[in-house]
Amino acid sequence: MDYNRYMAKRAVPLKASGIREMFKLMADPSVISLAGGSPDPNLFPTDFLAEVSKEILENNGKKALAYGTTDGYAPLKEELIKRAKMVNAVAENDKIIVTTGAQQAIDLIARVLVEDEDIIVVENPSFVGTLNSLRSVRAKLIGVSLEDDGMNMTELEETLKNNNVKLIYTIPNFQNPAGITMSYEKRLKMLELASKYDCLIIEDNPYGDLRFSGEDVATIKSLDKEGRVMYVGSLSKILSPGLRIGYLVADAEICDKAEIVKQVNDVHTPCLTQMIACEFLKRFDVEEHIKKSCEVYGEKCKFMLDCMDKYFPKSVTWTKPEGGLFILVNCPSSIDAGALSIEAIKNYKVAFVPGNNFSTDIGKKSSMFRLNYSTMPKEKIEEGIKAIGKMLTEKLGN
Amino acid sequence: MDYNRYMAKRAVPLKASGIREMFKLMADPSVISLAGGSPDPNLFPTDFLAEVSKEILENNGKKALAYGTTDGYAPLKEELIKRAKMVNAVAENDKIIVTTGAQQAIDLIARVLVEDEDIIVVENPSFVGTLNSLRSVRAKLIGVSLEDDGMNMTELEETLKNNNVKLIYTIPNFQNPAGITMSYEKRLKMLELASKYDCLIIEDNPYGDLRFSGEDVATIKSLDKEGRVMYVGSLSKILSPGLRIGYLVADAEICDKAEIVKQVNDVHTPCLTQMIACEFLKRFDVEEHIKKSCEVYGEKCKFMLDCMDKYFPKSVTWTKPEGGLFILVNCPSSIDAGALSIEAIKNYKVAFVPGNNFSTDIGKKSSMFRLNYSTMPKEKIEEGIKAIGKMLTEKLGN
Repeated sequence: MDYNRYMAKRAVPLKASGIREMFKLMADPSVISLAGGSPDPNLFPTDFLAEVSKEILENNGKKALAYGTTDGYAPLKEELIKRAKMVNAVAENDKIIVTTGAQQAIDLIARVLVEDEDIIVVENPSFVGTLNSLRSVRAKLIGVSLEDDGMNMTELEETLKNNNVKLIYTIPNFQNPAGITMSYEKRLKMLELASKYDCLIIEDNPYGDLRFSGEDVATIKSLDKEGRVMYVGSLSKILSPGLRIGYLVADAEICDKAEIVKQVNDVHTPCLTQMIACEFLKRFDVEEHIKKSCEVYGEKCKFMLDCMDKYFPKSVTWTKPEGGLFILVNCPSSIDAGALSIEAIKNYKVAFVPGNNFSTDIGKKSSMFRLNYSTMPKEKIEEGIKAIGKMLTEKLGN
Repeated sequence: MDYNRYMAKRAVPLKASGIREMFKLMADPSVISLAGGSPDPNLFPTDFLAEVSKEILENNGKKALAYGTTDGYAPLKEELIKRAKMVNAVAENDKIIVTTGAQQAIDLIARVLVEDEDIIVVENPSFVGTLNSLRSVRAKLIGVSLEDDGMNMTELEETLKNNNVKLIYTIPNFQNPAGITMSYEKRLKMLELASKYDCLIIEDNPYGDLRFSGEDVATIKSLDKEGRVMYVGSLSKILSPGLRIGYLVADAEICDKAEIVKQVNDVHTPCLTQMIACEFLKRFDVEEHIKKSCEVYGEKCKFMLDCMDKYFPKSVTWTKPEGGLFILVNCPSSIDAGALSIEAIKNYKVAFVPGNNFSTDIGKKSSMFRLNYSTMPKEKIEEGIKAIGKMLTEKLGN
């Protein structure tokens, strides 16, 4: 059978995410993965969650195993609203929807708001999951260059002036893949431009809690006076990615439509994982847990940066994150990061993600790559960075 | 803000499912719900699942809480393949994807195969979740009348002859909402027509295990020699709907695309719920559990049918299911089931689902309604049927 002729136009060009494909290779436990975006598995509160899940199924099993409401388990919604309020991300007319990971929140927005040829502005580079979700509804993506304090605002304004842009997608804190944070001034400017050119903003903030140096910056949503910002949060980085708990906070009109799409998408997020997440937020010392996570990531980040200083050639540069999980490495243009990543996996069993995955132009070669410092222990980080350094030095000299 | 002008065309007409909205009302525990489609909560193996979830998190917590692969937890995939093989629903080139409920399997197919104005044939009436998923990708739905042994095949052939149909969607066993089962002859005929008019078939089989009388009929997929059938299965009816575990078995080419769409949709189904489902299939006496469920549903079904004989007017007719969870009631055309359902909730706190929800023409009044017998205990079933009988008798006489 030739199934291709049955495929929808939107499905034909879809390619598997390079990261997810790499994830399959990484099933080999001897691989040093600097490719993922997971919390340190040693930080998972497994004992607490084991007790809590048993308790929920024993005492409230009928609720945990029956159908739930599409917008989410009510007590979890309350807890997540509290977290969103801590960063002033809940406006008067807003609602919240619990989603099967933050990925689903973005995908629901895509299905509700975006159609063929709609123009979406994204940071270039940006999170591959969002880029692919927007591609899957045939949006036209325009990338705006990323500077050390966020998007280049002159370029953003030019783009908005010359195109009928519907949405701006941004990860303002500890951006994926760059690790950089958008300044307060640029957040205000982005809102001003969104208002001037009449577009909406998706503020994706999965890493916001993971600051290990510098000062918090106000969320874009907290500065939004016109209801232009949809706020996406996640428990994947402060609790567990495998539980798949994310959330969308946005105006009721948008949330109501997103809820209808979620009905046809997965009916609801599993009740058990929602109830477990709820108990974590209610009974675990979450702030202490986050503080500890930040200490670990701050230390691992510094360690990785020190290793890079030691092993990487002088012609290579990289970002210095104040939080989150990622460092973005920028090599001279002679380096093809895609080829380098294949060499790294084959010859050294070291995995990282080449920059083209994060680009609006995925087919174009990139000399950038993303490193993750949260998942691996220090000795593996050093081993991995040393191997990458060796390859780069062979190609670039010291 | 007027958000409507930002909405995608596909999102504008989407309405909340009547059933899901009713589900919110039913949070009131005093409501007698004959509206849902849940297993009997007394059958949930809560103690086993409580032990198993604790064990998983204690012994394998890092795996349960980390990111997983998009196509599903490998040991669960193996178990589900075994179940699919029990009904010969796995062809040589097939793959399986674990989905966040069977709803996601259907929604993934919709996103991979269906686009604006594609024509899909469905049983009329049919499952509202599928109809709405197909509507969300702007498919054109054509309903084919349902007879006691499945779709009217003359009407199906006429429809295929006169329209460029891409897909046929069917629930062959204990159909939702009708409770009827497609005959072996009609399954063969459907395949023959799909081949003749070159379309694919979605075989949705969430209730197939729940037969309490009569003989099993071969799955359509088992009779398919051309790779036209995509098979959707679920653990929602034999284990728990709240865990959200479904699966898609289809040719690798289709599964590969569906996997990419799942990546952008929710990355993967939660690991913990997959691992719990896997232990249930491996270690619980599943066949005994299903046997017991069938006994309970057979008895409750018979009880509800007896109550209907006793309390419903002579001019009302209904289907006699051999399994599954639903009975479809057909009233004289003077009855508006939508108005009746509102009256029932308001005056008697009895909930059931009016037929228009299952229709390709959702705006058209219906004199049919769906009853569920699996969820409520017998005394509530009698109380509910008695109340509905009273309302119908007031309107129709005896």
